[in-house]
Amino acid sequence: MSTQDMAHKLTETVEALSEPSSLKGLFHQHKDGYPLPSSTALEDIIQLARAILFPGYFGKSQVNVKTIKYQIGVNVERLQKLLAEQILAGMCFADNDDNTEKKPSADTCILRDLETLKKESKEMATELISRLPAVRRILATDVVAAYNGDPAATSMAEILACYPVIKTLTIFRVAHELFTMGVPLIPRMMTEIAHSETGMDIHPGATIGPSFTIDHGTGVVIGETCIIGKNVKLYQGVTLGAKSFPLDEHGNPIKGIPRHPIIEDDVVIYANATVLGRVTIGKGCVVGANTWVMDDMAPQTKIYNKNK
Amino acid sequence: MSTQDMAHKLTETVEALSEPSSLKGLFHQHKDGYPLPSSTALEDIIQLARAILFPGYFGKSQVNVKTIKYQIGVNVERLQKLLAEQILAGMCFADNDDNTEKKPSADTCILRDLETLKKESKEMATELISRLPAVRRILATDVVAAYNGDPAATSMAEILACYPVIKTLTIFRVAHELFTMGVPLIPRMMTEIAHSETGMDIHPGATIGPSFTIDHGTGVVIGETCIIGKNVKLYQGVTLGAKSFPLDEHGNPIKGIPRHPIIEDDVVIYANATVLGRVTIGKGCVVGANTWVMDDMAPQTKIYNKNK
Amino acid sequence: MSTQDMAHKLTETVEALSEPSSLKGLFHQHKDGYPLPSSTALEDIIQLARAILFPGYFGKSQVNVKTIKYQIGVNVERLQKLLAEQILAGMCFADNDDNTEKKPSADTCILRDLETLKKESKEMATELISRLPAVRRILATDVVAAYNGDPAATSMAEILACYPVIKTLTIFRVAHELFTMGVPLIPRMMTEIAHSETGMDIHPGATIGPSFTIDHGTGVVIGETCIIGKNVKLYQGVTLGAKSFPLDEHGNPIKGIPRHPIIEDDVVIYANATVLGRVTIGKGCVVGANTWVMDDMAPQTKIYNKNK
Amino acid sequence: MSTQDMAHKLTETVEALSEPSSLKGLFHQHKDGYPLPSSTALEDIIQLARAILFPGYFGKSQVNVKTIKYQIGVNVERLQKLLAEQILAGMCFADNDDNTEKKPSADTCILRDLETLKKESKEMATELISRLPAVRRILATDVVAAYNGDPAATSMAEILACYPVIKTLTIFRVAHELFTMGVPLIPRMMTEIAHSETGMDIHPGATIGPSFTIDHGTGVVIGETCIIGKNVKLYQGVTLGAKSFPLDEHGNPIKGIPRHPIIEDDVVIYANATVLGRVTIGKGCVVGANTWVMDDMAPQTKIYNKNK
Amino acid sequence: MSTQDMAHKLTETVEALSEPSSLKGLFHQHKDGYPLPSSTALEDIIQLARAILFPGYFGKSQVNVKTIKYQIGVNVERLQKLLAEQILAGMCFADNDDNTEKKPSADTCILRDLETLKKESKEMATELISRLPAVRRILATDVVAAYNGDPAATSMAEILACYPVIKTLTIFRVAHELFTMGVPLIPRMMTEIAHSETGMDIHPGATIGPSFTIDHGTGVVIGETCIIGKNVKLYQGVTLGAKSFPLDEHGNPIKGIPRHPIIEDDVVIYANATVLGRVTIGKGCVVGANTWVMDDMAPQTKIYNKNK
Amino acid sequence: MSTQDMAHKLTETVEALSEPSSLKGLFHQHKDGYPLPSSTALEDIIQLARAILFPGYFGKSQVNVKTIKYQIGVNVERLQKLLAEQILAGMCFADNDDNTEKKPSADTCILRDLETLKKESKEMATELISRLPAVRRILATDVVAAYNGDPAATSMAEILACYPVIKTLTIFRVAHELFTMGVPLIPRMMTEIAHSETGMDIHPGATIGPSFTIDHGTGVVIGETCIIGKNVKLYQGVTLGAKSFPLDEHGNPIKGIPRHPIIEDDVVIYANATVLGRVTIGKGCVVGANTWVMDDMAPQTKIYNKNK
Repeated sequence: MSTQDMAHKLTETVEALSEPSSLKGLFHQHKDGYPLPSSTALEDIIQLARAILFPGYFGKSQVNVKTIKYQIGVNVERLQKLLAEQILAGMCFADNDDNTEKKPSADTCILRDLETLKKESKEMATELISRLPAVRRILATDVVAAYNGDPAATSMAEILACYPVIKTLTIFRVAHELFTMGVPLIPRMMTEIAHSETGMDIHPGATIGPSFTIDHGTGVVIGETCIIGKNVKLYQGVTLGAKSFPLDEHGNPIKGIPRHPIIEDDVVIYANATVLGRVTIGKGCVVGANTWVMDDMAPQTKIYNKNK
Repeated sequence: MSTQDMAHKLTETVEALSEPSSLKGLFHQHKDGYPLPSSTALEDIIQLARAILFPGYFGKSQVNVKTIKYQIGVNVERLQKLLAEQILAGMCFADNDDNTEKKPSADTCILRDLETLKKESKEMATELISRLPAVRRILATDVVAAYNGDPAATSMAEILACYPVIKTLTIFRVAHELFTMGVPLIPRMMTEIAHSETGMDIHPGATIGPSFTIDHGTGVVIGETCIIGKNVKLYQGVTLGAKSFPLDEHGNPIKGIPRHPIIEDDVVIYANATVLGRVTIGKGCVVGANTWVMDDMAPQTKIYNKNK
Repeated sequence: MSTQDMAHKLTETVEALSEPSSLKGLFHQHKDGYPLPSSTALEDIIQLARAILFPGYFGKSQVNVKTIKYQIGVNVERLQKLLAEQILAGMCFADNDDNTEKKPSADTCILRDLETLKKESKEMATELISRLPAVRRILATDVVAAYNGDPAATSMAEILACYPVIKTLTIFRVAHELFTMGVPLIPRMMTEIAHSETGMDIHPGATIGPSFTIDHGTGVVIGETCIIGKNVKLYQGVTLGAKSFPLDEHGNPIKGIPRHPIIEDDVVIYANATVLGRVTIGKGCVVGANTWVMDDMAPQTKIYNKNK
Repeated sequence: MSTQDMAHKLTETVEALSEPSSLKGLFHQHKDGYPLPSSTALEDIIQLARAILFPGYFGKSQVNVKTIKYQIGVNVERLQKLLAEQILAGMCFADNDDNTEKKPSADTCILRDLETLKKESKEMATELISRLPAVRRILATDVVAAYNGDPAATSMAEILACYPVIKTLTIFRVAHELFTMGVPLIPRMMTEIAHSETGMDIHPGATIGPSFTIDHGTGVVIGETCIIGKNVKLYQGVTLGAKSFPLDEHGNPIKGIPRHPIIEDDVVIYANATVLGRVTIGKGCVVGANTWVMDDMAPQTKIYNKNK
Repeated sequence: MSTQDMAHKLTETVEALSEPSSLKGLFHQHKDGYPLPSSTALEDIIQLARAILFPGYFGKSQVNVKTIKYQIGVNVERLQKLLAEQILAGMCFADNDDNTEKKPSADTCILRDLETLKKESKEMATELISRLPAVRRILATDVVAAYNGDPAATSMAEILACYPVIKTLTIFRVAHELFTMGVPLIPRMMTEIAHSETGMDIHPGATIGPSFTIDHGTGVVIGETCIIGKNVKLYQGVTLGAKSFPLDEHGNPIKGIPRHPIIEDDVVIYANATVLGRVTIGKGCVVGANTWVMDDMAPQTKIYNKNK
Repeated sequence: MSTQDMAHKLTETVEALSEPSSLKGLFHQHKDGYPLPSSTALEDIIQLARAILFPGYFGKSQVNVKTIKYQIGVNVERLQKLLAEQILAGMCFADNDDNTEKKPSADTCILRDLETLKKESKEMATELISRLPAVRRILATDVVAAYNGDPAATSMAEILACYPVIKTLTIFRVAHELFTMGVPLIPRMMTEIAHSETGMDIHPGATIGPSFTIDHGTGVVIGETCIIGKNVKLYQGVTLGAKSFPLDEHGNPIKGIPRHPIIEDDVVIYANATVLGRVTIGKGCVVGANTWVMDDMAPQTKIYNKNK
């Protein structure tokens, strides 16, 4: 192939790839003046949240008791700014697409003007920040649970410094607050960052009580409508998923139906167990490794997978 | 230990570590003038491919319909350059090693001169680019499959913006084209980047039909000689692997024998199922979670793992 | 909410988050003059170790036989510096916390002065470096095992360039040496980096013989007190974990008790198998995929998970 | 001084430095939602302008004739975006300050709403871009003048690649267009970047004809109201400055009065000459090195500084 | 030249360049545990000082009145840390050299132990910070002087945002405080950063009163023992230098003798004037451009350079 | 202006700017496979040269006598690689242009094949490196001259750490070697980096003897054909330039004619003096500040600029 032929081939391909019909549903045309959802910004947000919640463990600066208010103050201010931008981005991103034919043509993002949306985004970011003290309190119970649940852990500091479950739960608990506030897209992007970092895929919609821990954690899946009580422990590879889901008259899955398990207090679920559907695993149950559970379990019962 | 003793110990260790015999098979001597395979370059290549295939979802620049051709043009040009370099690097890297005693001493990379290899690399990069419109078309079917397969997904935009399956399949489908063109090393390095990012290990040699999706995905393994039909759905932790493999007379595994499953159209395989060997899972089968499948399954059949 | 109200809410939250009681156990006050454990520094350490052990495969510089001693010399010098800092950071970090009420109030880190600790850290870094030639030798057997164990591998170079098992084992084998030398925190932080990168969670305390390999690897867990013989092969999702653990009189798990499996030579464990407790899997055993093993296996036996 | 005393001293200083009265006139309170003038953004703007005007000499990408339109298209699009932001920043920055007591309290920036200002900024950025073909044409004459004026120059390429006069004039000629369009602050910030880079301080308000060159250039000063004809050559250290300036009734300098020299066509001014005030240096004059000129010079005359 | 010959030549050169005698006086052997003087750290220090002194004009963060204390608090804390390190580096750097044969063999840096030096450095950094409110007050007079002295300036904001004289004086006034506190090397390194950025070379030892300004500034030199009153204005290229200096019995220049001009209040010195030696330029004098002054000037006198 | 109008205006401008005729002489079409001259690479080269010549003063690594050979070895290897690339870039850059109509159409760069050029570049880089020991020896005399020439200098270390004259002369003396070896473009680009950094513009073709120093230095110009003896000292703003230059029959300046001053041993030239043309300033002369010299000066004479 001559250089000329290659150039020709490239030019033709550029034409083909720029053809509007070839881009249908795969192209995001950005509205001028709106921020874009940004993984990098979300990673900064996560770092800021960690630095605010666990000062000295995360964040670049050295911290001491006398000046910690300066540090938290600066981090809170910056968190508000970045988060408001990303919330705004999330509010318009999905709406702004020509991909989803099911949604009404009247675009909510267009109906409300940019200034209103900006104000709302800022209020939501402020609301999230005001919830951080409570988020820190519940995370403190998770740290203790992780320490008590692992004989290999030598100190609380080790848990905070390197246990993936704490990294994931910090992101999840913040993302969950955003989810309950109705912020679209952004909470899910945040938990996907945790998913990529630790292999634990916890949907931001899940409801998870205090003193929760996951050991090792790779491969864990916790679905959107899960309800998890307090003092629950999971091991790696555990799935709390949906069995199947009803379709609407167009053959599309009906969204928002409760379809994931309810896990009551004090349950332990061992490695690679798969619990599917809106079943209830009663208080104090033990689910053995590599089991497949599709039915309710009475409180204080156990299930194991026996090999031949 | 005195400072002098430490310095002495270090110097001795440097000597030991530089000793040619200690480096045998673990040392890559780079041929002057040839590019090195580079994870960083491959990550740039992946970003460019994403920005070309899904403009506005990936890539730094804001995009609008009028100027999209400029963006795609610049990205295509840069993709060609980077890809040609990495293809060239791949072509010489493996050959260039003293590690593999099995390979003939006549080094194909030495036999063909650098200029010829450069020209070939450029042609292959051009060829890959010319396949991108088709790659985009098949990925479009995967996006729809992911959307239809997950009630938690609220829009196509969400799928494109944050679902790990799309990140992985974009890399896989590009790497697969390079694999079928005979590019060594590079396709595998690309899918390992996806593996690290999403926990899904899809060999670039696998054949995968349209409308394919994987939910959650962590722990999924799809082997080199797999053949997957259309409209197949996998869940996290599914292995499509090899059972065992014959050895040659020297006790080395014989390469290239079909040894992974054939999955026909419309199959669903639930979490943590393990399908091993050149078995055929017939059209419309359902493989339950945590099962171990080593035999063919007739079309439209189901298999479950029952616990005691 | 007015701008004033938002500012007020933020200020109140900063107060709440800076309140000493709210920070109890979640705050790391850094001792002036001591280095902090740093993921970034540990990643540099890992890159240096890889560049020293496998020159030309890792590290930025091009390498040739004549000048390799310069490269290794510079990398060794820098490794010593960075590692000594991180060892020092590890020695003081856990001690420095107010989190762990169980530990004696007499802080060993305070008792010994900074200069002594610095000297010790430097000696330990030097000691680690002096073990690198042996680390390289055992890693060389792992590379061969990975090559022989995967028909999809086309060359040793491919193994070294992109197989996640080699990335993980390089980190593990270095971290294990630090663990046996008594370095706190740092070895675990290093293996968590590998865990995040490859989904394989190998505790630095585990004892692993030569010619060890893990195929694909996502979801693998190897516990602290595991003992693994030579020529063992694992597949993705395999857990070598603890069954349960005795509590002390305060209800805390007793640390340091042998509680993970012993895997003898020549064992193969297939995908997603879960082996729990201080059981012995005898020489030459085969553990099938998706099994749950809680008892000893006699040498040369096999176990499979049969579905209905 | 004890650690406590130091902490106390720092805290007191923070208080003192945060005291509003101490900040009077030295503090820039940013209006929410407005971009800030940014040296970094301006440096990007300058790089983009250079890459558009002299493709292949500046800018990261390799360029060829076939695809140059893609490159210029992408660069133009990005230039418009960055420039519009900086123009907006400039329009509000000065107004937004409490420093300048002379300016009317009715803040023009507040009177016009943000959306109007954004639209204007975008139009001005577009207008600037539409002038770039003309800017390139006049810069082409400067390149020839630099080449002809320096026997040490071996090629036009050398002029474009490394002569500081071209770097400076590219910035000046772009900044001058912005100045004539009434953009505040930004043009001056741009020429100060050139000043720092090359030591040539050309005010963006100066009027400079084609085929202009400055040899070496360090220390050159060209004032705001200078008018320079065509084919003029300056050497390093030449000042075209103001003699003195009238004050208004408050003792403040009256702004905007013509107070710098008029240099007619074909003039050469040698090193370190200082020409001050609204004098006219006639066509074809030669001003010797180290002279001080405060009077008109008739066309074709020469002046020298004779030493004893 | 064959590849072998080249390699040989390189190896020989490495030997020659590593030869201790060839390094005599040109080699800095770093004492383990001591920080190195670092241009990068000094640039960070300068950025922090600017952000503290003129919040909102410099520094990345957006600032508002309510939260400015957080910002200044964080910046002050970081400034103390960085500055203490660099002061320590400066205290040992010069002493640590084998270059200067004149200095006594008893190394003050060795005599005092590291901990004492660290404490002193921290105290000096704290002292510098406690002087910043006064530094801001005098810089405020310089800003006004620059504004009043330039008809081209349109606002105070423009002065603060882009006038090189303010950049330089901010560095100078901070460096001067360090100089008067006896910090070696570091003040000079700081003013050399200003020199490189703006072309103004002001020795940190010079004494400069309030309301000082320099227009344009490139090429200005102000020597170590200069004393400048209040309300003085210089133009570009002005030298306040030394005439000649007495040598000691070994032919070395005697250090520390007053040898630069005294400039009294209200003096104006025009472009490229050179004032040399310990002369006094009386109150209210005007020194014309391109003059060479080596004698005292009585108050209110003028001097001009007349050309032929 | 409507958004549509703006888009139209931009598109038209892109067309205009891409028009081949508008690019004539201002466009650099890069030959595929050839490196580009790169300021960034040249800055790396300068940093490497400084780190090799003055270890411990420049370069990131800490250095000690025992391991200095590793450091120099690595730096030398990297310098050779980078320099060979830039020499190659320089050899083709100028030739590759359509700008210079005077040059023969037979492009020397095309006549000689790439491999030959690469080999030559590598040899030239090696040759340069082999001259570094001699370069260090002469720079050592310059360091002493700077120390002896400035009463404000407190140690040799201060000279090496922050005097701009040493930064400039290091670049100049390396660039001069490349210039004498016939490397095009690159030496000039290197001295322009020094020019921008320090305000001293020394042409790489100038011949400068040992023990040379420049105090302060901003604004100094030393022309291509200057010859400077030993023990010469210049002050800031001194020009050693060309008077005028003969034109050829086409009106172009004739290149390469000796046209700059000869400065004999032991000359001192004070601030802002301008010496023009092929004059000889005899041994031991003193040229006063702000003088303009266009005639020979007999040895041991002095010249001053007397003001009225």
